[in-house]
Amino acid sequence: MNLDVVLSFIKKQRVVMVSSVDETGCPNIKAMFPPRRTEGGNVFYLSTNTSSKRVAHFRSNPQSCLYFSRRGLISCTGIMLKGTMEVLEDEASKLLLWKPTDKLYYPLGVTDPDYCVLKFTAAEGRYYRNLKKESFTL
Amino acid sequence: MNLDVVLSFIKKQRVVMVSSVDETGCPNIKAMFPPRRTEGGNVFYLSTNTSSKRVAHFRSNPQSCLYFSRRGLISCTGIMLKGTMEVLEDEASKLLLWKPTDKLYYPLGVTDPDYCVLKFTAAEGRYYRNLKKESFTL
Repeated sequence: MNLDVVLSFIKKQRVVMVSSVDETGCPNIKAMFPPRRTEGGNVFYLSTNTSSKRVAHFRSNPQSCLYFSRRGLISCTGIMLKGTMEVLEDEASKLLLWKPTDKLYYPLGVTDPDYCVLKFTAAEGRYYRNLKKESFTL
Repeated sequence: MNLDVVLSFIKKQRVVMVSSVDETGCPNIKAMFPPRRTEGGNVFYLSTNTSSKRVAHFRSNPQSCLYFSRRGLISCTGIMLKGTMEVLEDEASKLLLWKPTDKLYYPLGVTDPDYCVLKFTAAEGRYYRNLKKESFTL
């Protein structure tokens, strides 16, 4: 699997599905804005509400997956990345992702305690296109 | 939460995200065709490949979630259903969902051993619309 193809596909998506495992062991999914920042091809940064259920899940169980997909008229493509999610609340991480329009969601600005950063580190992935599938490592 | 609103939203979607927990405890996501059949407002039937990773996951751990979402120009709506997934391979269940066009995926027809039915029974759900969220039971 060509990692450039994976990253290029991810960059074009307007939404990412994020999965966590809750306190009962049940998987949860939430659609989120796509990662704002990538590092080294396997680290992805997102932002979310510190008070959210997902953040509570990741603090107890960091195992997570991100899923990007596109269903076109003819073809369906999906990329799943499996790895771990860290919850970051330090100022430097929060500043790294902050955009002025975030004030809509976090009225107190970049220091809003309800604003935090999710750092996802992928270990492996799976690529689906129509009926073909391929696993890969990152 | 009005269950009719939930079911009406689900009916309109062209894709569903299905989550399972793999052998390492990591959540997995896969985009699938939406449920073909619903019963009693809390049971949803899908079909898939018996040889797929998801089927192996559900046989070991039936906890699952389905997620339906739509990102419009102005609003974002998401519905997550949490529950359990059963893998059905009996002829009656397979006939219930079979459509002639399935031959594209299962060349041996309705008795193809690689064709099976997934029966999802939802216990609870969560509804997201823009910044609002609400939990509900089914």
